[in-house]
Amino acid sequence: MLLAPVAMAQTGLAPRDAPAKRIPVPDDVSPQMQAVIAQPLHSGWNTPPTTPEGWRALADSQAAAAPSSVEPMARRLHVRIAQSTLGGVKVYRVTPETIPARNAKRLLIHLHGGCYVLNPHEAALGEAVLMAGFSRTPVISVDYRMPPTAYFPAALDDATAVYAAALKTTKPKDIGVFGSSAGGALTLEVMLRAKQQRLPTPGAIAVGTPMADEKEHGDTMQTNAMVDNVLVSPSGFCDAAARFYARGHDMADPMISPLNGDLHNFPPTILTSGTRDLLLSDTVRTHQKLLQSGVEAELLVFEAMSHAQYTFDDRIPEDRQAFTEISAFFDRHLGH
Amino acid sequence: MLLAPVAMAQTGLAPRDAPAKRIPVPDDVSPQMQAVIAQPLHSGWNTPPTTPEGWRALADSQAAAAPSSVEPMARRLHVRIAQSTLGGVKVYRVTPETIPARNAKRLLIHLHGGCYVLNPHEAALGEAVLMAGFSRTPVISVDYRMPPTAYFPAALDDATAVYAAALKTTKPKDIGVFGSSAGGALTLEVMLRAKQQRLPTPGAIAVGTPMADEKEHGDTMQTNAMVDNVLVSPSGFCDAAARFYARGHDMADPMISPLNGDLHNFPPTILTSGTRDLLLSDTVRTHQKLLQSGVEAELLVFEAMSHAQYTFDDRIPEDRQAFTEISAFFDRHLGH
Repeated sequence: MLLAPVAMAQTGLAPRDAPAKRIPVPDDVSPQMQAVIAQPLHSGWNTPPTTPEGWRALADSQAAAAPSSVEPMARRLHVRIAQSTLGGVKVYRVTPETIPARNAKRLLIHLHGGCYVLNPHEAALGEAVLMAGFSRTPVISVDYRMPPTAYFPAALDDATAVYAAALKTTKPKDIGVFGSSAGGALTLEVMLRAKQQRLPTPGAIAVGTPMADEKEHGDTMQTNAMVDNVLVSPSGFCDAAARFYARGHDMADPMISPLNGDLHNFPPTILTSGTRDLLLSDTVRTHQKLLQSGVEAELLVFEAMSHAQYTFDDRIPEDRQAFTEISAFFDRHLGH
Repeated sequence: MLLAPVAMAQTGLAPRDAPAKRIPVPDDVSPQMQAVIAQPLHSGWNTPPTTPEGWRALADSQAAAAPSSVEPMARRLHVRIAQSTLGGVKVYRVTPETIPARNAKRLLIHLHGGCYVLNPHEAALGEAVLMAGFSRTPVISVDYRMPPTAYFPAALDDATAVYAAALKTTKPKDIGVFGSSAGGALTLEVMLRAKQQRLPTPGAIAVGTPMADEKEHGDTMQTNAMVDNVLVSPSGFCDAAARFYARGHDMADPMISPLNGDLHNFPPTILTSGTRDLLLSDTVRTHQKLLQSGVEAELLVFEAMSHAQYTFDDRIPEDRQAFTEISAFFDRHLGH
């Protein structure tokens, strides 16, 4: 099997022919991370739904399964979850049982991943629970509308509405915005939209392995194909989902591919990825563009991690490390 | 061809079987970088010398070829090169023609790469010229002894002697130490040695894609095998050279594998790698260990770059970007 590139424009220059490889589970990560790395390729990676009903059924099955993982993690991390609304948008308030005085006026807004189509309702909350648990800061997780209920730019509209509503009660400097994958892209897109609307930017943002370039993608989409056991391949389910969300809209639009936007005057940003991540390239390209735009930007890359695995479970030491570092970044940059 | 893992300990967990791939030259980098990416695998990657005379002949051929690339780059960057000695060690003084007042008291010490065996004399100087040119700060590049003239720990002894001598005329806070590959490892090793000898640490260090774990290596040694066109493979020339330098010494010794050392109280550190780099894992593992040791540490990862290609040529925009960012890091952290 020779994996053909599908998602990236090509030059006329000689490609690299890499041989088949048997790649062991490395022993320089925790046993818990080793178990994650050893998992087979995400089931169904190459058979995405092809109908609106199919996507909805997949998302609904995730939502049904979520409580069994999210609720125990919330208990372990002493975090409470409550449904609410803000700015006319459904949200979850994810609140630490104890909040240090330093964090009392701070607010973190979470934009979940799932390729703009997946992880509805409680299925969104794993990353929000980790963030609340490790930062000891109140989190609002946006349960933004998704296809087939609402298409582009509904997710961005909802995320921006929640951010604008938060600005009415919280100083911009005290707000952080964060998310991974589509949530990382949405975090960047909300910043672009905020600049358009002359809203103040928040104190800091945390952008995890963002779907930052849905038109072209970067090089690790090829080099890590069939190595990343979450996204698996550029011809996998995630790009199919993003196209379903876009419904014919230009995938190069900065509001879908924020790497194409003007990143000047963005707030301090921390980015996170892993060496096996299909979106490692899009993460490091975003980091470099931020630096070149004069933005204070830091990069974390975790050994042998596939896409967004640092958001999986507080019992994985590397995931605890990631949220410890992201929490420290917010603590350094937010007002208090 | 199924590439067998040779350099990394294995767990009993299921490995990943990745298929053969044809990986295009990406179009999200500069044309100059595209040309670098399109180069075939480093000639001789799998036929390292097997005798001391063979290694010396290879190193001598590099030294003979160096002036044709180093001297034009020095002219383009308005940098002058002079042979000298410091602390009883041969060095090159690599000096910008004009030095801003802010940098007049600063000194950067360069430890070159080449797997502890290669890049003697002027062949060491490309990275030193880039650093002097972009930082506008005086650089001393250490022409440390190498096999077959002198084996482990001669390189470290020489590097430490130069650092100790520099401390007699320059405040620690005004000194930066930097290098890539073996030079990145040596930079870390000099810090470990300085702590042992109760020497003060410098103001900041820049550690490029370090050979930080010659005993075990990280996961990208497998995932990027035959993709990185510089180091190419864990069974390539660089590990053979490192073993030649070690001459039977334990490769797990922190003075050869500094990732095994105690990194607490290291100075602020910037690390650089690329997404195709065999040593990306060892770079990010070093970054994470520094963060966990309470050290201020920043990470740069360049799109589709193989090992240390950011040190190649000032005419490559990505190389200019790398040294602009590393220079800015030194400027933020060194005294003046």
